[in-house]
Amino acid sequence: MSDKLRLGMIGGGQGAFIGAVHRIAAQVDGAYELVCGAFSSNPEKSKASGLELGLQPERVYTSYNELFEKELQLPENERVQVISIVTPNHVHFEPAKLALEKGFHVVLDKPMTFTLEEALELRKVAEASGKRFCLTHTYTGYPMVKEARQVVASGKLGKIRKVYVEYPQGWLSKFEEGGDNKQASWRTDPSKSGKAGAMGDIGTHAFNLAEYVSGLSVTKLCADLNIVVEGRQLDDDGAVLLKFDNGASGVLMATQIAAGEENNVKIRVYGEHGGVEWQQSDENTLLVKWLDKPAEIWRTGGGYVSSYAQHNTRTPAGHPEGYLEAFANLYRNFALCVKADLAGEEPKAEWLDYPGVEEGVRGMAFIENVIASGRSEQKWINFSL
Amino acid sequence: MSDKLRLGMIGGGQGAFIGAVHRIAAQVDGAYELVCGAFSSNPEKSKASGLELGLQPERVYTSYNELFEKELQLPENERVQVISIVTPNHVHFEPAKLALEKGFHVVLDKPMTFTLEEALELRKVAEASGKRFCLTHTYTGYPMVKEARQVVASGKLGKIRKVYVEYPQGWLSKFEEGGDNKQASWRTDPSKSGKAGAMGDIGTHAFNLAEYVSGLSVTKLCADLNIVVEGRQLDDDGAVLLKFDNGASGVLMATQIAAGEENNVKIRVYGEHGGVEWQQSDENTLLVKWLDKPAEIWRTGGGYVSSYAQHNTRTPAGHPEGYLEAFANLYRNFALCVKADLAGEEPKAEWLDYPGVEEGVRGMAFIENVIASGRSEQKWINFSL
Amino acid sequence: MSDKLRLGMIGGGQGAFIGAVHRIAAQVDGAYELVCGAFSSNPEKSKASGLELGLQPERVYTSYNELFEKELQLPENERVQVISIVTPNHVHFEPAKLALEKGFHVVLDKPMTFTLEEALELRKVAEASGKRFCLTHTYTGYPMVKEARQVVASGKLGKIRKVYVEYPQGWLSKFEEGGDNKQASWRTDPSKSGKAGAMGDIGTHAFNLAEYVSGLSVTKLCADLNIVVEGRQLDDDGAVLLKFDNGASGVLMATQIAAGEENNVKIRVYGEHGGVEWQQSDENTLLVKWLDKPAEIWRTGGGYVSSYAQHNTRTPAGHPEGYLEAFANLYRNFALCVKADLAGEEPKAEWLDYPGVEEGVRGMAFIENVIASGRSEQKWINFSL
Amino acid sequence: MSDKLRLGMIGGGQGAFIGAVHRIAAQVDGAYELVCGAFSSNPEKSKASGLELGLQPERVYTSYNELFEKELQLPENERVQVISIVTPNHVHFEPAKLALEKGFHVVLDKPMTFTLEEALELRKVAEASGKRFCLTHTYTGYPMVKEARQVVASGKLGKIRKVYVEYPQGWLSKFEEGGDNKQASWRTDPSKSGKAGAMGDIGTHAFNLAEYVSGLSVTKLCADLNIVVEGRQLDDDGAVLLKFDNGASGVLMATQIAAGEENNVKIRVYGEHGGVEWQQSDENTLLVKWLDKPAEIWRTGGGYVSSYAQHNTRTPAGHPEGYLEAFANLYRNFALCVKADLAGEEPKAEWLDYPGVEEGVRGMAFIENVIASGRSEQKWINFSL
Repeated sequence: MSDKLRLGMIGGGQGAFIGAVHRIAAQVDGAYELVCGAFSSNPEKSKASGLELGLQPERVYTSYNELFEKELQLPENERVQVISIVTPNHVHFEPAKLALEKGFHVVLDKPMTFTLEEALELRKVAEASGKRFCLTHTYTGYPMVKEARQVVASGKLGKIRKVYVEYPQGWLSKFEEGGDNKQASWRTDPSKSGKAGAMGDIGTHAFNLAEYVSGLSVTKLCADLNIVVEGRQLDDDGAVLLKFDNGASGVLMATQIAAGEENNVKIRVYGEHGGVEWQQSDENTLLVKWLDKPAEIWRTGGGYVSSYAQHNTRTPAGHPEGYLEAFANLYRNFALCVKADLAGEEPKAEWLDYPGVEEGVRGMAFIENVIASGRSEQKWINFSL
Repeated sequence: MSDKLRLGMIGGGQGAFIGAVHRIAAQVDGAYELVCGAFSSNPEKSKASGLELGLQPERVYTSYNELFEKELQLPENERVQVISIVTPNHVHFEPAKLALEKGFHVVLDKPMTFTLEEALELRKVAEASGKRFCLTHTYTGYPMVKEARQVVASGKLGKIRKVYVEYPQGWLSKFEEGGDNKQASWRTDPSKSGKAGAMGDIGTHAFNLAEYVSGLSVTKLCADLNIVVEGRQLDDDGAVLLKFDNGASGVLMATQIAAGEENNVKIRVYGEHGGVEWQQSDENTLLVKWLDKPAEIWRTGGGYVSSYAQHNTRTPAGHPEGYLEAFANLYRNFALCVKADLAGEEPKAEWLDYPGVEEGVRGMAFIENVIASGRSEQKWINFSL
Repeated sequence: MSDKLRLGMIGGGQGAFIGAVHRIAAQVDGAYELVCGAFSSNPEKSKASGLELGLQPERVYTSYNELFEKELQLPENERVQVISIVTPNHVHFEPAKLALEKGFHVVLDKPMTFTLEEALELRKVAEASGKRFCLTHTYTGYPMVKEARQVVASGKLGKIRKVYVEYPQGWLSKFEEGGDNKQASWRTDPSKSGKAGAMGDIGTHAFNLAEYVSGLSVTKLCADLNIVVEGRQLDDDGAVLLKFDNGASGVLMATQIAAGEENNVKIRVYGEHGGVEWQQSDENTLLVKWLDKPAEIWRTGGGYVSSYAQHNTRTPAGHPEGYLEAFANLYRNFALCVKADLAGEEPKAEWLDYPGVEEGVRGMAFIENVIASGRSEQKWINFSL
Repeated sequence: MSDKLRLGMIGGGQGAFIGAVHRIAAQVDGAYELVCGAFSSNPEKSKASGLELGLQPERVYTSYNELFEKELQLPENERVQVISIVTPNHVHFEPAKLALEKGFHVVLDKPMTFTLEEALELRKVAEASGKRFCLTHTYTGYPMVKEARQVVASGKLGKIRKVYVEYPQGWLSKFEEGGDNKQASWRTDPSKSGKAGAMGDIGTHAFNLAEYVSGLSVTKLCADLNIVVEGRQLDDDGAVLLKFDNGASGVLMATQIAAGEENNVKIRVYGEHGGVEWQQSDENTLLVKWLDKPAEIWRTGGGYVSSYAQHNTRTPAGHPEGYLEAFANLYRNFALCVKADLAGEEPKAEWLDYPGVEEGVRGMAFIENVIASGRSEQKWINFSL
């Protein structure tokens, strides 16, 4: 009898990038077994996807409603336990809410919902449900991002004063939407993506990273949002000045029109005595800089890193842990917590270190506030929930 | 009915690094289902390991002989199909030979065998068996290593003239063996590791990488092998001058006493018009250098890379594919070939691009020759099989 | 009879960092001979400095007024020709104005003056004088910064859309002023430095670099300026959102409290088809990135670079040209222009590529505008002269 | 009365790369005044070069014999004091010997002489002369190379075990000699360059760097030397296995046919507890790696570096000191020592840290031995003087 958690998936049918990523992430550590799914709003496509994934045909559903209904009819020890939702943003809220209400744990792709109102509502549902909820802000799954947070939290850098976070992409440098590029099409369509384009898609990642690593909360912001490519409906570029609750300031840059850039999300946080720097293009390195001594190269797998980084590492130092491993860390920690719950045990602090409803609500608030600021002629607006 | 290949594992019980790596590599793409194993020569430990992995107790065996015997009694559509062998070097030959003879496909950790004689014998067995055989020279699974080979093969660099390959490690800088460090203990023990220490463990990887990327074969070599740490029985450091079959020359450096180094295996190959450079610490970059124009940064996921690199990539450019993905590429390509065989189809060239018996035999010949050269007072010795 | 230009210096006495830098920069190419100076407002110190520099005692003056007066009494072929002014900001305007009015060419350290009014006045004086004027925005002297400008100007990147420029320092992370740290003391003192701290000292460099490389002009800005270190009188940190005259947007970050940072000024400019990236820590590399092909590593000394980069390079590719060479390029180009003037010849375009009064005026306008914006509650303010 | 040392130059006429480099290096710190020269064996060219450099016509000579003769007739306080010799290798010995014998200090470009015999003779002459002698192994002038030596010498790394040094170039990838490429022509001509090509030109630099940083002496070597480009007369590629006097081993790689490489000389030295790594492409960084803690990034200008690095630095951290500054450090230290001698003072240890006759003799011995080894079928040959 396998002790793998039984996983179901909503969305993520054939050709969907992020669905495949979620499945790999769940598989890496062997903690989940994919048992069912409603992979597409197109029944044919859902069926084909499920068969390709080796599911039993009767557990490939044509809608999430059907999935919940049928799965609840199965004996508890066969029934799906964790629901992964990897649909476009406008189809996040309802299935997530239903899943939680019907007693399933939920892993949800970011951003949390279509609107802040939905997010606030979903938070209530999640809290009432007693079920676990994970929002896949992948970058916080990297061992060296976790280490950055730990270095800051340790106080070694002193009071934090400055945060720079950036997420430059170039893939929307041309008008890509409306054609074959499915990713471009839905992500630039306000009816599917929501109020924000770049700010929702990657700005929320940058925002989450900034708050996660610094341990601070944004209190005010001032945004310059742009639609650079003619004909586009949502922002494809922006820069945001930030103020944090301890008085620190910051800059957040997110763009999809930096031609030639891939996905080099990067964060730098400075305190009184030093700073930390991490970027995805050198994902297993954390630069730790000091005012009065040489900068240090902290590495995934190093014997000196915290229990948080160690727990989220699979291979010896020098064997790079990449994006999928970071993603898998979210799924693995989530599974460890769910299993601890099932066993009536207390999850370890390291396991609980995955993004949840709070991060989801703040991400949606970021979108609301940054869009409002972009439209305002006033310099600062308060970050409100 | 899942179309996953049924995988069995020999070795790789609790606490074994490389066994866990193989399991993850097999799981990443969902192409295998682990169904049985003989995880340790210690029956208790084998059982415990198998249960932890969620196997059915009756398919956790106490020896590979038992595994073969019992599995052959199962109906063909339940029986294990692929055997992963992840034992120390002295327990490679026999289970691999048996597995092939009994009709299983084999994935074997490197180096292939304990001696060259065994390797030559195993090649015969493999060829006679009609079964597939993969030797896990992981580094050739990286998309950008594959791309390096393709750039060379395209002729763009002209005739190849120089190859530098290096694998610096520092983890054996002290006398680690004999204590708790199981890895150190068996890898430095000639009764388990074979004739060579560093040259067998990492020199063979460097050698394989040099031949793979350059498309050339070593014909002569001149080795300086050292036992640096007092009390050690096998070489922990060495450098080898190389000659290739087209007249090119090379240098191979492998050491385990470069204190402070992790696993930054690196290769540079130069031809008449330019060169390629890859290193594991920047695993998704291939530098392509030119005599008369700017060097270029080729990246995993770039739209301009070959079908070989593309086929071995899972995520968009900038989301790093790491060591486990490289390892998974071996397992995935192996599975694609096995499935093509089962379906009576021709595997694609990209799928066939995994290391096999030939690479295994050459790796063992490298060990034999490099040890002989290390002991010789003559400068060059011929690379003989 | 040497054809070296006769150089005099105002400021830059013993212990002054920037004075020594100017002297080296002038000496590197042997185009100048230091013949006189008023090195300090302290007569003793001026004398001692001049003697240490090997000047004739009678040409070491105790004030710039004395310098001008006495030098004008010398025969024209002995008299100083070029005056370098390396005093703190509040002693820029008067000696520069006098020097120009009295017929000397002027090299002036940045920022140009103490106030924008002075800068506008100095521009008039300079234009009326017919003499040459150079403002030492050093970073535009780097070969690869010049190349960046040429790549943008060539149109290869298409219309420019985004500019990121940053100048992070950490040296003012503590309260350094008032003690022995002379640099810290005057640069944080509004009576010597002017209205701005970090924005005047390094923000102006970043601003100049942004306009130089992009070929664009800032039209609007929105600044967040901070005094981070308690007790400090001027901004030591800031971030500025920018709008350019072609509709592009940008972000400028300048800070002196990023503990652990040195002087890694960095610029990235993106157009429709690609981008350029340069940073001082890798000063001889220009990354040229493309939307649809591999990024390229353009290097100082490469055979493919423009005449601008070539002209400003002394050594073969791979022998790094550093900060002093960049600085020397300003002096060398200035000398070539002065000598061409003297010879009645037309200076080449490559020689004329040094920063002058226009850059000086815009730099002072940047200071005025950025300070105004920092105090404003309105988001955007127009960049006004 | 200037206290600059009076410098004369032999060789280095118009168009000669290294002559210009020497002149800049001497000028950077204002410690020398070029007063005379015999710039070319072609009298016209010598005159033209001297005039262009602003020398008095009567001190531009047509041969070094004339230079010595005429300068000795000048009063001692006008006479040249230091002779820079920047001719091709076959014209090193005689002018250097004469200069020393006639009472001048000598700065000589490397390699020291045409043959080892000449080098041994020149050492005697130099020692007998009581004059100072500097051999311009430029790379040891970099602050971070000096720091590397200091870190090793401090014992922090423990006993040194391994040295990797490499100097890859690509500029001789084609047959360049015999045409307009003057550099290529003499450097590949045995009648001007000597017994060795790449090994003499850049191998000696690598060798010097290895001994300088490690503080060790090579005792045995095993060389693979190649003439890769058809028609070439001297080695353009080679790799050398090394043994050092403390038992450490090493690898030296020097090539001129690594197409696409510039001049990225690099050294790594490992001891029991850690290692140091420096390369010219990141010239102001010294990586200091440790067995059990994070690697450190030591930087030129850092407050924590040794007095040796500090003494050889002109600008604050982050303002790169390049190749010319490294070269200038040799000239500056040489000048400080000569001036100390003149003043009857003891030079500081930091000033004495420039390469001299001993390094020159060992470099020539390296050439002799490496060529002998390249031709030998025996693995190791002793490093003999």
